[in-house]
Amino acid sequence: MHNDRISTWARWGRSRDALRLDERPALVAFLAEQLGGLGEVVEPVPLESLDLLPSRLSVPARQALADALGAERVSDAAADRAVHSVGKSYRDMLAARRGVLTHVTDAVLYPRHEQDVVGVLAAARKHDLAVIPFGGGTSVVRGVEPRRGSHQAVVTLDMKDMNEIRLDPASNLADIGAGAFGPEIERALAAKGFTLGHFPQSFEFSTFGGWLATRSAGQASTRYGKIEDIVRAVRLATPAGLVVTRRVPASASGPSVLQHVIGSEGVFGVITSGTARVRPIPETIGYWGCLLPEWSRAIAFVRDLVQSGVVPAVVRLSNADETRWLMKTSSQKKGLVQRLGKAYIQRAVRRRSVSPDRVCLCILSFEGSRDAVRLALRCAKEHGRRRRAVGLGSAPGRSWERERFALPYLRDELMARGVMVDTLETATTWGNVERLDGAVREAIDAGIEAGGTRGAVMVHISHVYETGSALYFTFIARQQAGNELAQWQTIKTAATRAILDHGGTLSHHHGIGYEHRPLEAEHGPVAVEALRAFKASVDPTGVMNPEKLL
Amino acid sequence: MHNDRISTWARWGRSRDALRLDERPALVAFLAEQLGGLGEVVEPVPLESLDLLPSRLSVPARQALADALGAERVSDAAADRAVHSVGKSYRDMLAARRGVLTHVTDAVLYPRHEQDVVGVLAAARKHDLAVIPFGGGTSVVRGVEPRRGSHQAVVTLDMKDMNEIRLDPASNLADIGAGAFGPEIERALAAKGFTLGHFPQSFEFSTFGGWLATRSAGQASTRYGKIEDIVRAVRLATPAGLVVTRRVPASASGPSVLQHVIGSEGVFGVITSGTARVRPIPETIGYWGCLLPEWSRAIAFVRDLVQSGVVPAVVRLSNADETRWLMKTSSQKKGLVQRLGKAYIQRAVRRRSVSPDRVCLCILSFEGSRDAVRLALRCAKEHGRRRRAVGLGSAPGRSWERERFALPYLRDELMARGVMVDTLETATTWGNVERLDGAVREAIDAGIEAGGTRGAVMVHISHVYETGSALYFTFIARQQAGNELAQWQTIKTAATRAILDHGGTLSHHHGIGYEHRPLEAEHGPVAVEALRAFKASVDPTGVMNPEKLL
Repeated sequence: MHNDRISTWARWGRSRDALRLDERPALVAFLAEQLGGLGEVVEPVPLESLDLLPSRLSVPARQALADALGAERVSDAAADRAVHSVGKSYRDMLAARRGVLTHVTDAVLYPRHEQDVVGVLAAARKHDLAVIPFGGGTSVVRGVEPRRGSHQAVVTLDMKDMNEIRLDPASNLADIGAGAFGPEIERALAAKGFTLGHFPQSFEFSTFGGWLATRSAGQASTRYGKIEDIVRAVRLATPAGLVVTRRVPASASGPSVLQHVIGSEGVFGVITSGTARVRPIPETIGYWGCLLPEWSRAIAFVRDLVQSGVVPAVVRLSNADETRWLMKTSSQKKGLVQRLGKAYIQRAVRRRSVSPDRVCLCILSFEGSRDAVRLALRCAKEHGRRRRAVGLGSAPGRSWERERFALPYLRDELMARGVMVDTLETATTWGNVERLDGAVREAIDAGIEAGGTRGAVMVHISHVYETGSALYFTFIARQQAGNELAQWQTIKTAATRAILDHGGTLSHHHGIGYEHRPLEAEHGPVAVEALRAFKASVDPTGVMNPEKLL
Repeated sequence: MHNDRISTWARWGRSRDALRLDERPALVAFLAEQLGGLGEVVEPVPLESLDLLPSRLSVPARQALADALGAERVSDAAADRAVHSVGKSYRDMLAARRGVLTHVTDAVLYPRHEQDVVGVLAAARKHDLAVIPFGGGTSVVRGVEPRRGSHQAVVTLDMKDMNEIRLDPASNLADIGAGAFGPEIERALAAKGFTLGHFPQSFEFSTFGGWLATRSAGQASTRYGKIEDIVRAVRLATPAGLVVTRRVPASASGPSVLQHVIGSEGVFGVITSGTARVRPIPETIGYWGCLLPEWSRAIAFVRDLVQSGVVPAVVRLSNADETRWLMKTSSQKKGLVQRLGKAYIQRAVRRRSVSPDRVCLCILSFEGSRDAVRLALRCAKEHGRRRRAVGLGSAPGRSWERERFALPYLRDELMARGVMVDTLETATTWGNVERLDGAVREAIDAGIEAGGTRGAVMVHISHVYETGSALYFTFIARQQAGNELAQWQTIKTAATRAILDHGGTLSHHHGIGYEHRPLEAEHGPVAVEALRAFKASVDPTGVMNPEKLL
């Protein structure tokens, strides 16, 4: 067996959808200018050439797993083991492209039913196997890395066949199997007139269970909420037995067991299914884009909007650097944003009121009834006027929508040409956004400089709350040949330090995994020790996803 | 020291606000008719006549507490001990009225600072004292009952002096001390143009910390969310040390420690303060009341409304029985609801389309900008038309608003006249509301009948979600003289069984306390064992609120 829904080896997504840099000469020229040249294209080592250590799975352990699942659902084929052993972080891609995997799973298991998972966990306890739950494998924090801790061997549980979707239309609820991928969820719901409204950039290649396990956010989360706001109940198979939370809209029955399972990243057990709020497909969606004269005013614009009770679905506010990059990298033949932007900048410069290199692009969408969307758009434009925004109509939003899942493909093209590119994210209160943003960009800038190559850092705001916002950073630089990982690690470490020192959170929606530990930095020692005690109760021998999160 | 904000002994609230039944002869006549007569008035045993056992606090323990807090902040005055030893459940009031307290705290402590609480917890560990956090003492689930478990003595921590309120207006956030009462919070915020929007019926006599510890809901929670949706960060003093969650709008840094503290009812530690989302005071509030021809259609009306994205602040949909009682018990001299209702019923009966004893009263309010409220009211009326509602304008809503905190006073008057009256609540999905409602009312009815006195049960929906609703039951009957507690317990047990067997939750907003245990009935044994492990980590000697929740 294998999973044809996970990405092409050592790349993002499906090769047929790959974004080809050689078809975009203007972008190549811009990148070469910004980065001081691009390297020659180097292709990844093919999957077939990988030289993996043999599976450490013992014969009795293999037999126990076969008994639990059926022999055909236990795979130790090399290709299968390899693709389930790396996520999609920059570090993962560096390793995968070179064909050097430091942690390789010993077998991939394909359960069909919750009872199969229960059987696997019993076998894992008995035969001392580490168990890694695996959805779409898009973790960027080393969440699916098959670390075995002190256990004999490690097995990866590919959940793709546990993908049943049952709608309860009277209750606006759907029970969704952990292994259901984004597109199959939306297709099933759309057939009945509903949507989950959850569109992470990984949407096509990630699963419901993965979203729950990592506290995922989507591009429309400002309206729909993060996955923890969408989920209403969950089923978790732990080595100590099942945890099933009640299927109710809200409860005061003690601490939230549900919100303790959400974000547990496989260390308590395997999420087998969940119950999620769904919504009728909105009557209409209205886009509005605008340019704001500078970053502080742009931040105030989206803050005031959401604090006034006008809630967009999509918000994407780019700082001046990112706005400039977007204008260059847009695939629009006519360079729509660029053209509209130019008109604005020309006008603004004529009035001598703004500096053309300080304008910030903002894209908003609103969903709902025609009346509600009309009212929201009117309010947004009023707020825009107060902050001296120049409206760009619906075109930038529609352009963004067409390319909403495309950006990760660009990374493959850039890495092939010797470019380091990565993103990181956090969140903070409105009163602290500019301070945190400044500190993180400064840290990244210093890290790039330390690497000795040319590069850039940019930021956007894409999930806003009444009380604050997420901040999403992108950095790019020429790789330091022969020192690629250390170059990146320097930047990552400095950025994480800046986040913690300036009132951010280790992650707003990527999770912790192995990458962002120790969790004490976020929650302090007393809380983390108590989380460990919770884990020890449900997973006494520590077979669940060792060395992650806690 | 004492706390003048908590209720008059053996009654609800302040005596000056008491609702006097003898001033409402029409209501007395109606009650007498429904219940087959009322008893003679029996006043509660006065606080001064209580004969409490002496405090069990040892001299060294008392000294350690005095060292931590200052001697004047350790009180073992009998009156102080008594008022901190009972909550406000029907059972509590039965006991208090008779002056028979089975569990009495040994001292009341009044900390001023988080460091004071830390000192108390250290003393409690050293001297083996149980610690009961106490906000306003309005628990109806025996949450403040001073059970000492196996400990030497028990102390109650009255949080009233930890009531600092600091606004962060740029971030729509307020840091609020656990001991701040509802009115002081709203006063402080209103002075700066903000509101917390949290108005439980106990608002005047309950505290922020109590709300957090019990997952409280308020009358406008459909718009503002329950307290767990409003809170953004919390500080918890545990015997093992402080837990401080990060002050961010959202996070993917593992399981939600915040949502693990919220609802922990004092068993993990003492909530010392929290950070809450606040909102600008709305530009306008619009009320609309209507009568719907019968219960199923009335439920569909509020369900469709909220599922269409039109979110009321207040929703109060009474079933036919409650509607009839409300028409009788309304304090309006002109009997507004009654008069309007009569007009509707007369018209309906003329058309022979509905049965006059099946109509259901619904009160809605909407908050926000004038445009948004206008649009919401228009949508509500459209939905109403589809369900054959008859509009009653804004009068019923305004009438409700005036009396929103008054109902608990009526219980004192009824109990004084030999009437059992209590409420209980749960929540479920829309698809299950009628089934659960039917089962619970049937169980209560049977319980009343088993008691052999006349009575009634009614229900309303007052917190609605896209996915379901809370159900709030009120039952009333003549007391069985000499058997009052057993009579009530029979009903309570049967109702709880019906809730669990028919897809409800043990509580939507009252909490668990001692009353609703065992928590396994809600979360199952695996989760509850893990919660106990979490508790053992933060409270190794089990001093925190023994025998509650877990």
